[in-house]
Amino acid sequence: MSGLKQARREDYRYRIEIPTRWADADAYGHVNNVIYYSWFDTAVTRMMYERGVLSLHGPGAIGLCVESHCEYFAPVEFPQTIEAFVRIGRLGDKSLRYEVALFLPGDETPAAAGHFVHVFVDRATRKPTPLTLENKAALADLVVAAA
Amino acid sequence: MSGLKQARREDYRYRIEIPTRWADADAYGHVNNVIYYSWFDTAVTRMMYERGVLSLHGPGAIGLCVESHCEYFAPVEFPQTIEAFVRIGRLGDKSLRYEVALFLPGDETPAAAGHFVHVFVDRATRKPTPLTLENKAALADLVVAAA
Amino acid sequence: MSGLKQARREDYRYRIEIPTRWADADAYGHVNNVIYYSWFDTAVTRMMYERGVLSLHGPGAIGLCVESHCEYFAPVEFPQTIEAFVRIGRLGDKSLRYEVALFLPGDETPAAAGHFVHVFVDRATRKPTPLTLENKAALADLVVAAA
Amino acid sequence: MSGLKQARREDYRYRIEIPTRWADADAYGHVNNVIYYSWFDTAVTRMMYERGVLSLHGPGAIGLCVESHCEYFAPVEFPQTIEAFVRIGRLGDKSLRYEVALFLPGDETPAAAGHFVHVFVDRATRKPTPLTLENKAALADLVVAAA
Repeated sequence: MSGLKQARREDYRYRIEIPTRWADADAYGHVNNVIYYSWFDTAVTRMMYERGVLSLHGPGAIGLCVESHCEYFAPVEFPQTIEAFVRIGRLGDKSLRYEVALFLPGDETPAAAGHFVHVFVDRATRKPTPLTLENKAALADLVVAAA
Repeated sequence: MSGLKQARREDYRYRIEIPTRWADADAYGHVNNVIYYSWFDTAVTRMMYERGVLSLHGPGAIGLCVESHCEYFAPVEFPQTIEAFVRIGRLGDKSLRYEVALFLPGDETPAAAGHFVHVFVDRATRKPTPLTLENKAALADLVVAAA
Repeated sequence: MSGLKQARREDYRYRIEIPTRWADADAYGHVNNVIYYSWFDTAVTRMMYERGVLSLHGPGAIGLCVESHCEYFAPVEFPQTIEAFVRIGRLGDKSLRYEVALFLPGDETPAAAGHFVHVFVDRATRKPTPLTLENKAALADLVVAAA
Repeated sequence: MSGLKQARREDYRYRIEIPTRWADADAYGHVNNVIYYSWFDTAVTRMMYERGVLSLHGPGAIGLCVESHCEYFAPVEFPQTIEAFVRIGRLGDKSLRYEVALFLPGDETPAAAGHFVHVFVDRATRKPTPLTLENKAALADLVVAAA
């Protein structure tokens, strides 16, 4: 019992909408479990681009996913649009733990929630590299203090 | 030379926006050629749901893709949002040819364009089944007369 | 520190090979984190089909993923082929916890490892339904006693 | 009527096996039309890597898809394994037209067939760049003379 099902929109700090695609569904007619992680890394990466911490074309570090986790509470079906919410649960020197929740419009409880950990590495050498103070400042409002 | 590169937004009849996802890109940094077809069938299927011709849960026919084609004119990168346009190039009794074009915001010429053919079959037996008159009426404004 | 990096091939009971696909890579040139879950559910579902517990066309229950988790230890690149290993960590009445590890040929330690939980539901009503004794017997050799 | 349905294994020159993945299916229970293109570019790119014409990490040109086409003749279902066949229909100075057919084990006629055109560009500048004589020699046995 992780308590993730009790997550509410107001517990998070960043929000984007992600429309489902037809091919997201699997043979059971609902969105396949794999796709949720694509929504996680889309929400997280878009936020990181908007804050100027990551970018498609260098320079700067890249974020490698070293751990991810998801709990699924309700099915999602095409053509629904998901609201993806993100907060930062741990802002380390070389890594970030993003906490993500996905809500269907009108639902108070999440369809799914989980987390995702990025380690930052140099784009060329793939060696761990620290976040700059500027990076940390750009993300500060997303950090949720541990209880 | 198919002339598809000369396609313009006003040549089409239905429009949706589809945001890119981080995992859409391949090792060359731009969206992989495969993903464009996912945008095609997302635009087409969403239009067909909105017009009441197809639905996720029966009853009614389902559309099986029997042919698809795409020409690629410009790269697309995360986190761009694509405008997908659809028109119907042939409205047959048991099949439809959708013509689709994808534009990047601000561009006059398409990033990619192609077509997609659905044959309609019974959900259970998978035997060809005709579109109803009601279905055809619901799609009539999307049909573009052949030159 | 979950200890998953210490997983070894001999800790698992079922093995399949899964070749990478070109589109599995993301803009960083290695396989995207999302794809690993597709390998997880491919390995698990193929095993369940082979054991006769699940099938594409009914009758019988279907397995819905309610939780998944992955830790990533080494990058995977096209055109490598992954060895996916599965064991069952908990064989409940209405759910199964699969433990999965992915190895690159020649490597002693996993490229990634995690778990995946299926709850079994009736195909039509989507209500939880118990595994039969026959199902449990078909899976018994895959169960690894908890330490 | 393109005649692609008459394609036979012996009309092609290169062959790999590609197992389906669970998530390849869409809500209709069979593999989604989009996935076939992933099989096309997997077969083509693996062949090009084996022949030393393309590589994941430079130096050398990269191949950008400028056109693709597929006709679908029979459904494919998880956990089937596809045999993908490739030949080269046009070996130009700066582009290649690959012709691809996908067969299910035991079937004489293809489940799907189509083509795929690569234009070769410099990895960094993305300007068209010619195939070397060495590249062309490495592919010569795959070229099928036009009728």
